[in-house]
Amino acid sequence: MAVVVQKFGGTSVASAEHIARVAERAIKVRQAGDDIVIVVSAMAGETERLLGLAQAIAGRPAARELDVLLATGEQVTIALLAMALEARGMSAISYTGAQVHIRTDSMHNKARIVDIDADRIRRALVQGKVVVVAGFQGVDEQGNITTLGRGGSDTTAVALAAALEADECQIYTDVCGVFTTDPRVVPEARHLARITYEEMLEMASLGARVLQIRSVEFASKYSVPLRVLSSFEEGPGTLISNEECEMEQALISGIAFNRDEAKLTVLGVPDQPGVAGRILGPVADAGIEVDMIVQNIADDDCTDFTFTVQRSDYDRALEILLQVRDELGAREAKGDDNIAKISLVGVGMRSHAGIASTMFRTLANENINIQMISTSEIKVSVVIDSKYLELAVRALHSAFGLEKAAAGSEGC
Amino acid sequence: MAVVVQKFGGTSVASAEHIARVAERAIKVRQAGDDIVIVVSAMAGETERLLGLAQAIAGRPAARELDVLLATGEQVTIALLAMALEARGMSAISYTGAQVHIRTDSMHNKARIVDIDADRIRRALVQGKVVVVAGFQGVDEQGNITTLGRGGSDTTAVALAAALEADECQIYTDVCGVFTTDPRVVPEARHLARITYEEMLEMASLGARVLQIRSVEFASKYSVPLRVLSSFEEGPGTLISNEECEMEQALISGIAFNRDEAKLTVLGVPDQPGVAGRILGPVADAGIEVDMIVQNIADDDCTDFTFTVQRSDYDRALEILLQVRDELGAREAKGDDNIAKISLVGVGMRSHAGIASTMFRTLANENINIQMISTSEIKVSVVIDSKYLELAVRALHSAFGLEKAAAGSEGC
Repeated sequence: MAVVVQKFGGTSVASAEHIARVAERAIKVRQAGDDIVIVVSAMAGETERLLGLAQAIAGRPAARELDVLLATGEQVTIALLAMALEARGMSAISYTGAQVHIRTDSMHNKARIVDIDADRIRRALVQGKVVVVAGFQGVDEQGNITTLGRGGSDTTAVALAAALEADECQIYTDVCGVFTTDPRVVPEARHLARITYEEMLEMASLGARVLQIRSVEFASKYSVPLRVLSSFEEGPGTLISNEECEMEQALISGIAFNRDEAKLTVLGVPDQPGVAGRILGPVADAGIEVDMIVQNIADDDCTDFTFTVQRSDYDRALEILLQVRDELGAREAKGDDNIAKISLVGVGMRSHAGIASTMFRTLANENINIQMISTSEIKVSVVIDSKYLELAVRALHSAFGLEKAAAGSEGC
Repeated sequence: MAVVVQKFGGTSVASAEHIARVAERAIKVRQAGDDIVIVVSAMAGETERLLGLAQAIAGRPAARELDVLLATGEQVTIALLAMALEARGMSAISYTGAQVHIRTDSMHNKARIVDIDADRIRRALVQGKVVVVAGFQGVDEQGNITTLGRGGSDTTAVALAAALEADECQIYTDVCGVFTTDPRVVPEARHLARITYEEMLEMASLGARVLQIRSVEFASKYSVPLRVLSSFEEGPGTLISNEECEMEQALISGIAFNRDEAKLTVLGVPDQPGVAGRILGPVADAGIEVDMIVQNIADDDCTDFTFTVQRSDYDRALEILLQVRDELGAREAKGDDNIAKISLVGVGMRSHAGIASTMFRTLANENINIQMISTSEIKVSVVIDSKYLELAVRALHSAFGLEKAAAGSEGC
C-alpha cells in the first residue's frame, strides 16, 4: 500500500465541477488501496481577488496581515474538496497549514518550511481518511500564519511527501508532463517519461516553468520521486527522480529557452582584481537579479564584462552601468534587450564530448550568430538575436534527434 | 484606562470604505487612552457567497468542513481591518478564533464557547496594539475549527469582554439603540438610554432583534455592561446592564411584537395527567419550537389546550395535531396563522399592579379581541388578530406614556 501526495493548482480547482473531478480521481486512487494526501491551492482568481481587497485598504499592506488574508484562499478549497469527498461517501478531513504544524520561519509572504509534524496526518490516514491539506501556508514559532509565496503549494506537497516518506509526489498541472522543448515552437517536441532533478532544475530555471524551482530542489534534497501530470488528461506524466536510466542515456533531455532577458556589457574594463565585484555590486544592491555572467580573457590589460538580467530590469541596470563605467574608467557600457537565451540540458552531456560543437555548427549552418556562451556540467547556453529564437530551437531539436526517443530513454 | 471590546457586524465592514471608518473610529478611542479589542463578522454577503460554493459541491455539506469554509469569512475581515489600522500608523494585530484559543465544544455549525485564554490578547494590549479578533469562530479540544452559528460574533465579543474583564462591550449595529417599540410602527417610539438584561432578553426573544439572545444571556451571566450603538451615526446608544435605576423605575420599558407566529388549539381534551406531554411531545419530536402555551381550567372533565409556533412550521404542526386529536379522543384540533403577539416588557412591573388591566382596557377600547394571554414576572403577552397589530401597539404605546421619558428613566 503506497502513500501518494497529490497537488492540484488553482486552475485544477477553479470551480465546483473541477473540485468534483479532483474528488473522483482521488476516490479511485484510494479504492485501489493507496493512502492519499491532497494538497490544494486557492481557486483560480481567488488570490487576485484577495490582493485586490488588500490594495483597496492599503497601498503597502502589512506583511503579517497579508498572510492572514491570503491563507483564506486555500482554506476555502480544502473545505470544499473535503465536502466533495464526503458527499461521495469517502471519509475525508481537511487541515490548514497551522493544523498540521507546517512550521516555517517568520518571513511573511515568502516563508520557508522549517519542519512538519506529520503525526496528525498519519493518524487520519490510518483511519482510512483522504487527507486534504492547504498548500502555500504555514505557521511560525509564535503561531502567526505565514505564506510561502507564489507557487508555494508545490513546496508544501513535496515537503509533506518527504515528511510522510511518501512513495510519490504527484503535481497536477495544465500540461501532461515535461517535453524536450516547448511544443508551441517545435510541434515535434517529444514528451519525456523521466528526467533527473538536475535536468529539471536547469529546465525550470531556464524558462520551462512547469514546476517551481524550490519544490524541485526540495524533492532532490529529500529524494522524493516527483511526477508532473495533467489534471485534465489521462497519462503517466513525467517522473522526476535521481535514478538515471540503466540503459544508454540520451545525450540531451531537452532544449529550454527564455526571451525575457536583456544583455549588458562593459567594454574596456581595467583588468584588476575586484573589478567584477565593483560592476555587479551596485546592480545587486538595486535588487536586480543577474543570470549569465561572461568575462573574456584580458587584452592590453583590459577586459570585457557581459551579463544578462530580466528584461524588466534592463533600463535600471543600464543606468547603473553608465555610472559604474565612469567610476571604473571603462571604455564603454552598452546593452541589448533584443536577445534570447537557448540552453541544451542533459545529464548525458557529462560523459559525451561534442555536444557544444554540434550546437555551434547547427547554429552556424542557419547563419545565426552566437553572442554569448556559458556552460555548466549538464547545460550549454547561448545568447542570440531574439528574432532567430524559433529557427534556432527547431534546428537544434532536429540536430539532436529529440523528436525520436533515444534508446531506452522512454521505456525505463 | 478602560478596556473596551467593540463588535462590528457584516454591514459595518461591508467594503474597504466601511473598514476604513471602523479603523478611524478605533484609533480615536485608542488615542483617548483606552485599550481596544475589535471583534468583526464576515463582510456583508461573504457568508452567503461561501454557502453558495458549498451548495454547489454538496446538498448537505459535511458540518466540520462547512465550519472550515465559513471561518474564512471573518479571517478576511480581521486581516483587512488590521491592515487599515497599520496603514494609518496604528499598531495592530489580528487573531483568528484558534489563535486566541476561543475553545468551544465540538457541535459544528452551532458550537458553544467553553473557555477563552485571553493571555495572548492581554500581551498585545500591553504592547499598545489594537487587537482585532475574528468573531463567530473557535476551535474544539482536538483543534478542529468550529463556528458558533449565525449571530455568533456578538457572543464572541461578550465572551472576550468577560474574559478580559472589560469595562464595556459595545455592539455596533445599523440602529442607534433600543427603542420603546418599533419606530416604523410608532413614530413616537422613544430611544432608551438604559435597559436591564432581563428586559432586553424579553424584548429580543419577542421579535425586537437588535441583539442575539445568547449574547445577552452571556453578558448577564458575567455582568458585562453591554452597549448597543450605531456604526453609522454618533450617539450614546443603549446601555444594557443589571443596574436598576435608583430613581423611580418606569413601569414599562417597551412594547415588543411578533407577526411570525401561528396559533394551534386542541379542544375538548380529556383532563388527565400527561395530556400536555402527549400533545407537545410529537410536535417537539418534529423539531418544531413552541413559544406560548396556554391551558385553561377543565370543564366537564375536558380542557382546551393552545400553543403558538413559528408561522413557517404551521402546516406541519397542524398535521401532527390532527393525528394527536384522534389518538387522544379530543373533540377538535384547529389553528390560525393570522395572529400577532404583543408584549409589554418592564422590570417595573414586578412592584406595580394594574399593568395587565390597563393593557386589556386599552385594547377593549379599540374593539380588539384578545385570543390568548400569557404573563411572566416582567412581561405580559397577548395574541390578537394580526390585522389589529399596528393599531394595538400605537394605542398601548400612548396609554403607557412611552413617548415621554418617565421620571429618572432617561437620565440615570
